[in-house]
Amino acid sequence: MKLLKLLPVAAALIAAPTLGLAQDEGPSVGVNAATDTVFIFNSLLFLIGGFLVFWMAAGFSMLEAGMVRSKNVTMQLTKNISLFSIAAIMYYLIGYNLMYPLGDWAIGSDETGGYLSALFGPGVLEAVGVTADAADDYGYAATSSDFFFQLMFCATTASIVSGTLAERIKLWPFLVFVVVLTGIIYPLQASWDWGGGFLESQFGFSDFAGSTIVHSVGGWAALTGAIILGPRLGKYKDGKVNPIPGSNLALATLGTFILWMGWFGFNGGSQLAMGTVGDVADIGRVFANTNAAAAGGAVTALILTQVLYKKVDLTMVLNGALAGLVSITAEPLAPTLGAATLIGAVGGVIVVFTVPMLDKMKIDDVVGAIPVHLFAGIWGTLAVVFTGGYHGEATLGGQITGIVVIGLFVIVTSAVVWFILKMTMGIRVTEEAEIDGLDTAELGMEAYPEFSKG
Amino acid sequence: MKLLKLLPVAAALIAAPTLGLAQDEGPSVGVNAATDTVFIFNSLLFLIGGFLVFWMAAGFSMLEAGMVRSKNVTMQLTKNISLFSIAAIMYYLIGYNLMYPLGDWAIGSDETGGYLSALFGPGVLEAVGVTADAADDYGYAATSSDFFFQLMFCATTASIVSGTLAERIKLWPFLVFVVVLTGIIYPLQASWDWGGGFLESQFGFSDFAGSTIVHSVGGWAALTGAIILGPRLGKYKDGKVNPIPGSNLALATLGTFILWMGWFGFNGGSQLAMGTVGDVADIGRVFANTNAAAAGGAVTALILTQVLYKKVDLTMVLNGALAGLVSITAEPLAPTLGAATLIGAVGGVIVVFTVPMLDKMKIDDVVGAIPVHLFAGIWGTLAVVFTGGYHGEATLGGQITGIVVIGLFVIVTSAVVWFILKMTMGIRVTEEAEIDGLDTAELGMEAYPEFSKG
Amino acid sequence: MKLLKLLPVAAALIAAPTLGLAQDEGPSVGVNAATDTVFIFNSLLFLIGGFLVFWMAAGFSMLEAGMVRSKNVTMQLTKNISLFSIAAIMYYLIGYNLMYPLGDWAIGSDETGGYLSALFGPGVLEAVGVTADAADDYGYAATSSDFFFQLMFCATTASIVSGTLAERIKLWPFLVFVVVLTGIIYPLQASWDWGGGFLESQFGFSDFAGSTIVHSVGGWAALTGAIILGPRLGKYKDGKVNPIPGSNLALATLGTFILWMGWFGFNGGSQLAMGTVGDVADIGRVFANTNAAAAGGAVTALILTQVLYKKVDLTMVLNGALAGLVSITAEPLAPTLGAATLIGAVGGVIVVFTVPMLDKMKIDDVVGAIPVHLFAGIWGTLAVVFTGGYHGEATLGGQITGIVVIGLFVIVTSAVVWFILKMTMGIRVTEEAEIDGLDTAELGMEAYPEFSKG
Repeated sequence: MKLLKLLPVAAALIAAPTLGLAQDEGPSVGVNAATDTVFIFNSLLFLIGGFLVFWMAAGFSMLEAGMVRSKNVTMQLTKNISLFSIAAIMYYLIGYNLMYPLGDWAIGSDETGGYLSALFGPGVLEAVGVTADAADDYGYAATSSDFFFQLMFCATTASIVSGTLAERIKLWPFLVFVVVLTGIIYPLQASWDWGGGFLESQFGFSDFAGSTIVHSVGGWAALTGAIILGPRLGKYKDGKVNPIPGSNLALATLGTFILWMGWFGFNGGSQLAMGTVGDVADIGRVFANTNAAAAGGAVTALILTQVLYKKVDLTMVLNGALAGLVSITAEPLAPTLGAATLIGAVGGVIVVFTVPMLDKMKIDDVVGAIPVHLFAGIWGTLAVVFTGGYHGEATLGGQITGIVVIGLFVIVTSAVVWFILKMTMGIRVTEEAEIDGLDTAELGMEAYPEFSKG
Repeated sequence: MKLLKLLPVAAALIAAPTLGLAQDEGPSVGVNAATDTVFIFNSLLFLIGGFLVFWMAAGFSMLEAGMVRSKNVTMQLTKNISLFSIAAIMYYLIGYNLMYPLGDWAIGSDETGGYLSALFGPGVLEAVGVTADAADDYGYAATSSDFFFQLMFCATTASIVSGTLAERIKLWPFLVFVVVLTGIIYPLQASWDWGGGFLESQFGFSDFAGSTIVHSVGGWAALTGAIILGPRLGKYKDGKVNPIPGSNLALATLGTFILWMGWFGFNGGSQLAMGTVGDVADIGRVFANTNAAAAGGAVTALILTQVLYKKVDLTMVLNGALAGLVSITAEPLAPTLGAATLIGAVGGVIVVFTVPMLDKMKIDDVVGAIPVHLFAGIWGTLAVVFTGGYHGEATLGGQITGIVVIGLFVIVTSAVVWFILKMTMGIRVTEEAEIDGLDTAELGMEAYPEFSKG
Repeated sequence: MKLLKLLPVAAALIAAPTLGLAQDEGPSVGVNAATDTVFIFNSLLFLIGGFLVFWMAAGFSMLEAGMVRSKNVTMQLTKNISLFSIAAIMYYLIGYNLMYPLGDWAIGSDETGGYLSALFGPGVLEAVGVTADAADDYGYAATSSDFFFQLMFCATTASIVSGTLAERIKLWPFLVFVVVLTGIIYPLQASWDWGGGFLESQFGFSDFAGSTIVHSVGGWAALTGAIILGPRLGKYKDGKVNPIPGSNLALATLGTFILWMGWFGFNGGSQLAMGTVGDVADIGRVFANTNAAAAGGAVTALILTQVLYKKVDLTMVLNGALAGLVSITAEPLAPTLGAATLIGAVGGVIVVFTVPMLDKMKIDDVVGAIPVHLFAGIWGTLAVVFTGGYHGEATLGGQITGIVVIGLFVIVTSAVVWFILKMTMGIRVTEEAEIDGLDTAELGMEAYPEFSKG
């Protein structure tokens, strides 16, 4: 996401009312209306983008519910709806103000933010029925709409983690990790770039919608957790990798389509403005490129699995589409349609080759979230260099700096949290519970109680 | 939903063209355009809100299909798609004009409404290609967009009933009840507040998006039906409550996420205007508060079931989220984010405690719709008093009056219809059909024909 | 969809800036803003409409996954996500420029299109950060948003084919067919009407959102394929029709709701403009009529199956709703709500009577796509004559000409492609693979591996 600065055109419009009002009451209505219109379009973009990214929470739920065995489906669903709800509360209590601490960058910072409020108070929205005159105090869009939109990104980060660690992690330690991830880890590192922090100002790190800031962060947290938690029982035995098929590929496919749909809001909303011809045309480019990258990733995985294994692998095609989406997320605006398709296609290649690689390293990632969100996220962040990013200034050094700094931060903080949880609550269910399934052992409730197991 | 009055700012803009045109042709384009822009934004809000609330019909379908046993899934799906379709036709034929009988409140009333037309004619939309000049005749938004939006609320009311009465009610009497509910009961009581009727004008009853007018109405109709219909066979036997687990918790969770998403349109669209800075900022608040309340309800149910039963209950978490949504629906604008979270949290508490309470009273509510929509709906309507509502004038007396008047009306009218249906068509399937499942007995078609029962 | 011409009101607004700028700088901001606002609203319509139509790809996937036997679900999901991805790439590489070859009709044609580019180059979007001044070069909406929207229609056409041919066609020949369909067949015939070609200019053929151009085209391609491919083993044996029930009616119902939701974008977006009072009111009418037609189709199938078979048939109700949607698609604007309901109802009648008719002809259509998309599509195209269409000039002769010309073109071209594929790759799986199921035989991956077959 771009810094929350007014674009030149919008700025001109916002400056206009003073002129207009100084003249006479006749045209001023039209002029004010134009200013208001920009404000409304920008806010509307956040609202539409926000509900689309919200929808991704359902996508992760369905994808993960479809990729685990039926004995763990209730648990996976419980984790997903709970993590989203916790993210909503933590981002309100701590995250939002932590992410935008430097007044100038935050929407409505004069009224609601500032560094002190970040440490002492939760996020506050503008008053009910704010007038057009007061709009200046709130920047170029409604704080409420921005909060709603940003919250969804925070929740997405947590959703990524739950898939990797499925089928063996306990419910409550996982949720405690989510508290820390969504309240502190995610917003702190996000502030370094999107909050106008040093990665942006000093290194020119460019990450339009979060290949690194959202997806790699979730991926690093998942990877750290997977190593500390260890693989599922029976996954790696006698030097062999035993595939553990998901219980419901229809749900997994539904989840992928949901994520694909939500990604239009994820990337398109990250244009952060819709009140000018240039902005709406850019959003259109972002939509088209996002779709092209997903298609590129899916088709590449389709062809590659046919060539390599002589059989198309649906789960690879699904993850290929998702990897294409992650790959284009760092820069969905600058590439041409053809370049976007190719950037997504490389994401598809990454998935097909790194899923078995992780298995060789005995890192057990139930849904393939690490290849999709971490590896394709790194690729997407580097690919910005080819187009220079929307500012035309992204450098390889700056991009690598962002990837490394954020990566190290998330690895270290996640590892600390995971280790504390392991020492205190314990993070892994008993062997017996894992064999019986978490649904009956931990929750006493099966997802499909009437269907006998094959 | 607020009365369909123009807000001050919008009114100023709409008044402006006369002034502008009286001056000269130069600025008039800008001025007209501003007026048109408000009209377009308002209409667009109804269209986006409308398709999101439409989506809730799918949410109810999936939630209910997941919460019944597999032998009744086809029937539950059939009821849901049929009730929505019937609601669409009945609201067009009777409901819309019955709900907005007093010309002044209805959008486009001069052209299409009026009390007489309510009794003699179906809803009529504005002509194709209406000009900007004629926009005045249609009020501040397109009649067509308002009709589309309002229709979805009517259908939602009927969706609530189907879940409670699942697994034992016959198809056709249920659908006849839907005809009366959507054609007469819902729109008549809705007119008392949203149509500018006596609950609004004389008692100041305040129900932003329908905690009472939609959710409690559905809840009362469901409760009345559940008492008259009786519980499922074997649910209450030898003084014990026998849990009857749903067949597919993945579908139930999907349904909950769909409802949550749709609720942004339900509550956000009920702002009824998006053409000013104040309105769009308010919509942002509504979105953020709606999400916060759902999160509060889910997390509360999560913690409470852990504390009370030592095991988290996913169905309670799902219903907790939904109860949070219902709770905030009467006033999603005025509360702060913190207050919204707490209002939703109380909704979660209500669900956890009233689901077993209903079972003690041997009222069999298959999906928990009575706790979620009726009890949390009452709570939400009362909670308006804490914030005063968006007009700042809601009183405890006024809110209770609304709850009681609408409650009594729906109980009496529903009971009459249910009794007539019981006497004439019979409302309950035979014992044999109930044991075999309604799918084979009534429809001859299984939802999952290939999966053996456990 | 209407021709991509500026509407009179929009044209007036776009002409205004010159006047405004000639005066002085005061009001010009307001005037320019008005122009920009129209551009933004139009582009926004394409973006919202586009993601809703994208969502239909998920709808087809779920509908088809629910209507096939569980042994073929993975294959059906694989086909659906792959065909969408291929359509995205082919429409970009060839289709978009082939569809709008005559510069004048294409958005942004001066910059990006023209006949030669159609033959030699892929679709190109406008530059990043296009200025308001340059907006004229791109017509009345962002090329990127239009491309995104049009692409989804192309993909929908391919989705229709996959359902009919399920459970027996090989993966790769099917995908090759999709390449030709989405790269050449669809865009070529679409150019004859929507691209300003002879069907529009010489015969006044009127097809608002594609009853013929999208749905019948998919239907003809499916019918041709079904005849050449032959029925599933055991479907027609000893002169009897053996019903083969779908494995998951919950998914099929979900798919129908998704399609219904997406159709608001499909028909509403085809208004192609939202920047004036008249346009947004028209979009509202389109939404309301689209919903009414679906309801009419569903209720009709509900009642008819009860009357004819004494049992309601859920799959007929679902297809009735879809047939209602297809029926209204050729003209969702001009009819009244009552007429829209009736047009949809006739679609429901068509489905109930033609599904068994196809079976008598031993044409095996797994999901009923031919009755829904082809037969109801023809009906909907003819029904335009009753209202005259949005231009008021549609004639029976013109409509029949469009249906016949496009029908013949698609039958011939599809048949050629299917025959070439049959001769070269072979299009049908072996008998053994068909009996075992395509999932294990072709893909080695079951959709529901843990659930035993009944």
